Amino acid sequence: MYLPVLLTITLLFSSAYASVNDFCVADMQQPDTPSGFPCKKVTSLTEKDFAYSGLGVAGNTTNIISAAVTPAFVAQFPAVNGLGISMARLDLAKGGVIPMHTHPGASEVLVVIKGTICAGFISSANTVYFKTLFKGDIMVFPQGLLHFQINSDDGPSLAFVSFSSANPGLQILDYALFGNELPTELVTKTTFLDPAVVKKLKSVLGGSG
Amino acid sequence: MYLPVLLTITLLFSSAYASVNDFCVADMQQPDTPSGFPCKKVTSLTEKDFAYSGLGVAGNTTNIISAAVTPAFVAQFPAVNGLGISMARLDLAKGGVIPMHTHPGASEVLVVIKGTICAGFISSANTVYFKTLFKGDIMVFPQGLLHFQINSDDGPSLAFVSFSSANPGLQILDYALFGNELPTELVTKTTFLDPAVVKKLKSVLGGSG
Amino acid sequence: MYLPVLLTITLLFSSAYASVNDFCVADMQQPDTPSGFPCKKVTSLTEKDFAYSGLGVAGNTTNIISAAVTPAFVAQFPAVNGLGISMARLDLAKGGVIPMHTHPGASEVLVVIKGTICAGFISSANTVYFKTLFKGDIMVFPQGLLHFQINSDDGPSLAFVSFSSANPGLQILDYALFGNELPTELVTKTTFLDPAVVKKLKSVLGGSG
Amino acid sequence: MYLPVLLTITLLFSSAYASVNDFCVADMQQPDTPSGFPCKKVTSLTEKDFAYSGLGVAGNTTNIISAAVTPAFVAQFPAVNGLGISMARLDLAKGGVIPMHTHPGASEVLVVIKGTICAGFISSANTVYFKTLFKGDIMVFPQGLLHFQINSDDGPSLAFVSFSSANPGLQILDYALFGNELPTELVTKTTFLDPAVVKKLKSVLGGSG
Amino acid sequence: MYLPVLLTITLLFSSAYASVNDFCVADMQQPDTPSGFPCKKVTSLTEKDFAYSGLGVAGNTTNIISAAVTPAFVAQFPAVNGLGISMARLDLAKGGVIPMHTHPGASEVLVVIKGTICAGFISSANTVYFKTLFKGDIMVFPQGLLHFQINSDDGPSLAFVSFSSANPGLQILDYALFGNELPTELVTKTTFLDPAVVKKLKSVLGGSG
Amino acid sequence: MYLPVLLTITLLFSSAYASVNDFCVADMQQPDTPSGFPCKKVTSLTEKDFAYSGLGVAGNTTNIISAAVTPAFVAQFPAVNGLGISMARLDLAKGGVIPMHTHPGASEVLVVIKGTICAGFISSANTVYFKTLFKGDIMVFPQGLLHFQINSDDGPSLAFVSFSSANPGLQILDYALFGNELPTELVTKTTFLDPAVVKKLKSVLGGSG
Repeated sequence: MYLPVLLTITLLFSSAYASVNDFCVADMQQPDTPSGFPCKKVTSLTEKDFAYSGLGVAGNTTNIISAAVTPAFVAQFPAVNGLGISMARLDLAKGGVIPMHTHPGASEVLVVIKGTICAGFISSANTVYFKTLFKGDIMVFPQGLLHFQINSDDGPSLAFVSFSSANPGLQILDYALFGNELPTELVTKTTFLDPAVVKKLKSVLGGSG
Repeated sequence: MYLPVLLTITLLFSSAYASVNDFCVADMQQPDTPSGFPCKKVTSLTEKDFAYSGLGVAGNTTNIISAAVTPAFVAQFPAVNGLGISMARLDLAKGGVIPMHTHPGASEVLVVIKGTICAGFISSANTVYFKTLFKGDIMVFPQGLLHFQINSDDGPSLAFVSFSSANPGLQILDYALFGNELPTELVTKTTFLDPAVVKKLKSVLGGSG
Repeated sequence: MYLPVLLTITLLFSSAYASVNDFCVADMQQPDTPSGFPCKKVTSLTEKDFAYSGLGVAGNTTNIISAAVTPAFVAQFPAVNGLGISMARLDLAKGGVIPMHTHPGASEVLVVIKGTICAGFISSANTVYFKTLFKGDIMVFPQGLLHFQINSDDGPSLAFVSFSSANPGLQILDYALFGNELPTELVTKTTFLDPAVVKKLKSVLGGSG
Repeated sequence: MYLPVLLTITLLFSSAYASVNDFCVADMQQPDTPSGFPCKKVTSLTEKDFAYSGLGVAGNTTNIISAAVTPAFVAQFPAVNGLGISMARLDLAKGGVIPMHTHPGASEVLVVIKGTICAGFISSANTVYFKTLFKGDIMVFPQGLLHFQINSDDGPSLAFVSFSSANPGLQILDYALFGNELPTELVTKTTFLDPAVVKKLKSVLGGSG
Repeated sequence: MYLPVLLTITLLFSSAYASVNDFCVADMQQPDTPSGFPCKKVTSLTEKDFAYSGLGVAGNTTNIISAAVTPAFVAQFPAVNGLGISMARLDLAKGGVIPMHTHPGASEVLVVIKGTICAGFISSANTVYFKTLFKGDIMVFPQGLLHFQINSDDGPSLAFVSFSSANPGLQILDYALFGNELPTELVTKTTFLDPAVVKKLKSVLGGSG
Repeated sequence: MYLPVLLTITLLFSSAYASVNDFCVADMQQPDTPSGFPCKKVTSLTEKDFAYSGLGVAGNTTNIISAAVTPAFVAQFPAVNGLGISMARLDLAKGGVIPMHTHPGASEVLVVIKGTICAGFISSANTVYFKTLFKGDIMVFPQGLLHFQINSDDGPSLAFVSFSSANPGLQILDYALFGNELPTELVTKTTFLDPAVVKKLKSVLGGSG
C-alpha cells in the first residue's frame, strides 16, 4: 500500500539523484582543482571506496628518526576528497622523532594510542606550547604552525592524527632547507646559519648548491 | 566622443572577460567537483540558461502521500551551479504530507503560497519546533536536521522552498531505512524497531534483506 | 526497558548539547561579526523564532515606482543568521519597476507568483540577459551584478526572491548616485552624465552637493 | 650581535601579534557566533589549553546499547574552536550499538583501535554502504547522512572518530522521533509507523504527546 | 648519516606529494569551475609560473578617461588560481578617471605609488566614503560596492590594487548601462534617466536598442 | 516628483540598513572570533576608517637584516576585518633580507616598487621556486609555505605585499626556533642541528633553555 508513495517520490527526485553531491570520491586520473579532484561516477562506487586499510600496518621505523608517518590523504584515500578531513598514522620506535614540520593547508588533532609522546607547536606570536601526552590524550596543532612529536616512552609509541583538509600538505623543515637545490648562500642569508652548517646538512640530506 | 574611452577599457579587460566568473552554468556532461560542475562556455549562454519554467507546473499528487516535490536543483537548473542557492516546489493535496527528511547539504526556507501547512524540525538538542503556517508565512529549516511538512488545509496547499546550496541533497527517512537492501537485522539493531515492523515496511517500500 | 539507553546517551552528550550550533538565531542587540550576529540562548527560543509573517502582507505600491520590496533578511528574520539564506517579497502594481540595483553579498533566485515580470541582469562581460517571466517561472541573478524587475502585466504582479546570504545588502543605483552628498563634480566625472542631469536627479532624489 | 635584528622585527609586528589569529580557544562564557565562540585572551593560554585527557577514559557501556560516545567537541575541548576539526571516542561492549544518527554539521572519519566494527551509511541516492572494519581500518561518513556502528566482535571494541567541524552536532534518530513532545499524530503521518509503535517507543524513550 | 632519514620520510610521502595542493596554477585550456580552473601538472611548473611582469609596463592613458587599468587576474597570471588574491595596476594621467564600477567577486585594497588620488565608494546604506589619498596611503573598497578613483594631481598618478579573489570581475557602470543592447526603454524605466540622455550615451558608448 | 519613490524604498529597507554587512570595521576592544573581530557601529564610521597612512613611511632598516616590515593587518587597519585582504610594506636597504618565514593564514602577492629583489618559496613537494624580480614584477607565495625576500640591488629596494586574509599571521623561522624558551634538546632533536649551533643562536636571538 505504501509502495506507490515512495516510488513516486523517487521518480520525482531521480534526476536530482543523478548529481547529488553527498560525497565526491576523487578520480585521481583527472587534474586537481582548487576544491579537490573531480568525482568518480557514483554508479561505480561500492562500500570499499569509503574504507581504507592502509593505516592498519605499522610504518617501517628502522631509520634514523626511528619513526614513520603513514598518510591517508586524498591520494591514498580518495573518498575524503572534498569532505575537509583526512588522517595519518604515526609510528615512533624508542627514541623516534617526527621532525619540525608544518601542514600549510590544515589544522591537526593527535590522539595517543600507545606509549608517551612529547608534542608541541610554536605560534605566530612565537610562543611555544609543548606537553607530554599519555595514552588517550589528544592535542591540537593549529594550521600552518611549526610543530613536532617525540617519543618519550621507553618502548614504541603509536598515534593517529586527523586533519581539517583532505590534502593538508607537509613541509618538513630540514628537508625544505637542506634537501633541495636552494643555494647555500640563500639558505645562509635567510636563516643566519653558518655556510659550513648548511653545507654539511645539504650533503647529508641530499641537497645541492 | 566617449567611444574611444570605453573601447580602450574593454580591450584592457578583454582577456579578463574571457574567464570572468560571475556565474558558472553547469556543464552536466562533465564530472562534478567538490565545488560544483565545470562551467559551460560563456559564449554559448543565452537568457534562457538563467531561467527555468519547471516549477510552473503542479506536481502529480495522486499518490499515497498526496504530495509532490518538484526540484530546481543544479541537475534541473544548471544556472545555479556554484551560486549557493536552489529551489523546489511543494504541492500538497488535501491530507498531503512531505515525510520526515533531511537535506545533508543545505538550510531551507519555505514560503506558503496557498493553503495552510504544519511544518517542523527537530534540533540536535532534540527539541521539536513546529508551527502552522498560513499564506505568506515563511519558516527556516537549518541544515541537516530532520523536518517535515503536512497540509493542514481542507484544500490543496502550495509552497516554494529555497536552499542554501545548488545541490542540497535529500534523504527521506523511511526510504533510507526501508527502501533499500539494508539488512533487517541492522535496521532493527540501529532503530530499536521490531523485526516485524521493519520487514513489513521493507515489503511495502520495496526494500530487501 | 529502552529508557536507560537513551538517557545514558543524552547524559553523555548533554555538555555537547549546550553548544550545539545547528542554528544561531541572531541577538540583534549585540554587535555584528563578519560571520553574522552572536546567537541568542537556545533555551530562550521557541518555534516562533523560526517563522516570520512579514512577507504575508503586500507592500505599499502607491509610490512613483508602483512597487515595493519587503525584506526578510537577518534584521527582520533573525533565524536565518549564519544559515546563508534569506528572502524578500516583491509587489509590483501596474507599471511597477524595481530599479537597477545590486546585492553586493548574495546571488538571488526569483519566482513569479502572480502576473508577468520582465527581469534581467548585466554580466561583468557586459552582456545583458533579460527575459519575460510568467507565473511559476524562476530566474537567477548572480552575486553583485546589476539587475532589475519590471511588471509587464496589465495588473499587479507578485514575486518572492531568495538570497544566498542572510544579509545580502542592497545598492539601488539611482539612490547611490543621486540620493546622497556625493558632490556633483564627482558624479559627473565618474558617470559621464551632464552636471545638469546630475543636479536635477539630486534635487529629485534628496541628494546634495 | 643578531639580537637587535629580531627585536626590531618583533617590535614591528608586536601590534600584529596582539591579534594574530593562529587559533581561537573558545571562551565558552560568551555567546556563540556562526563561526564559533569568541576567543580567550592569548595571554591567558598555556599548553594545557591545547591538550585534553577526556578521551583517555572508557565511557560507561553498562547500558542497553552497551555503548558509549565520549565527545571532544568545542564544548569539551575549546581549543578546536574555529579550526574545523574535533574528535570523539566510541566504546562498544559486546553487542554494543551506536544507533542510527547524523551529524548535521560535519563529515566523520572512524579508525578502529580494538575489536571489529560493522559500520555503514545511507546516501541521498538511498544507497547503503556498510562494511566490517578491523583494527586499523578507517571509514568515512559524509556530512549529514544517516550512519551507524555495531560491535561485531566477541569482546569490546574501541574506535576514535574525527569530524570536519569543531561542533558537528548529533541527531540520534530514535531520540529525535520518540524522545520528545512531537505529537504521535505527527510522527505517524511523517514516518508511516503505526500509532501503537510510536506510542510504545515514546513511552520507552521518555517522549510525550 | 642523516641521509637515510629524510629519504625514508620522502618515500613515505611520495604518494601524497603527487597530489599536494599548495597551489593550483590554472590550466586555462580547461573549463573553469566554481572554485577556479583545473591545475596544471606540478611537474610542468617553474619559478616563471609564479611571477608576472605585465604590471611593470604603464598602461596607455592616451584616451578620454586619461587612465588605464592593467589586470593581473587569473587570466593573465594563472598562478593566483584558487589562492584568493590578484592584482591590477592603475595608471592615471593628468585628469585621469577610473569611472564608477564594481567588482562583484572581491574586496579591493589600493596603494598610491605616485601622485594624488581621490577615491571613494558608496555603501549599501547609501553613505558615501571618499578621501584624497597621497603617496603610500592605502584604502579599502568592500566587495560589490560602487567605487571610483580620480587623479587629483597635477601630473600622472600610479596605484596598485589588490583583490580578495583570483577573479574579481569588473562591472563598469556606464558600459553596463549604455554599452550593450539593453533597450533604451528598459534603461529609462530602471534608471529614471530621460530617453534622450540614454540614447545619447548609447550612441557614444557603442550601445544599441 | 521622484522624491517619494526612493524615500519609500529607503523606509522599506531602513531596518535592513541597520545591519547591512558590506563591511565590518573591527572593534579591537572586543574579543576576536574565528571570522574576525566584532564590527564597530556603522554610524560611528567616517572615510578615515577606510584609509590608512601607515605604509607611507619607510620602516627603519638600520638593523642587522637591513630590512623592515610594516604591516597593515587588521590590528593596524581595522577596516580590512572580514574582507579577506590586507597589506604590508617591505623596506630593504642594501644587503637587506626578510628571513625565511611563513604566513599560516594567507597567500601573498608581492610587487616591486623600487630596486631588485630575489624572492622565493619552497613547496610541500620540497621544490624551490626563486626568481630575481625587477621594478613592477609581481610574485605569488602560496599559503603557509616557507619563503624569503633578499635585496639584490646595489641600493635600497621597496615592495608592497598583499595577503588573502585580514590577519595572515607571521612565523619567522629563526625566531620560532631560537627566540623563545623551547629547550635546546627539543630543537636539536627536531632539527638535526648541533646543540652548539642551537645554543649560540639562542643566546643571540634572546632564547632560553
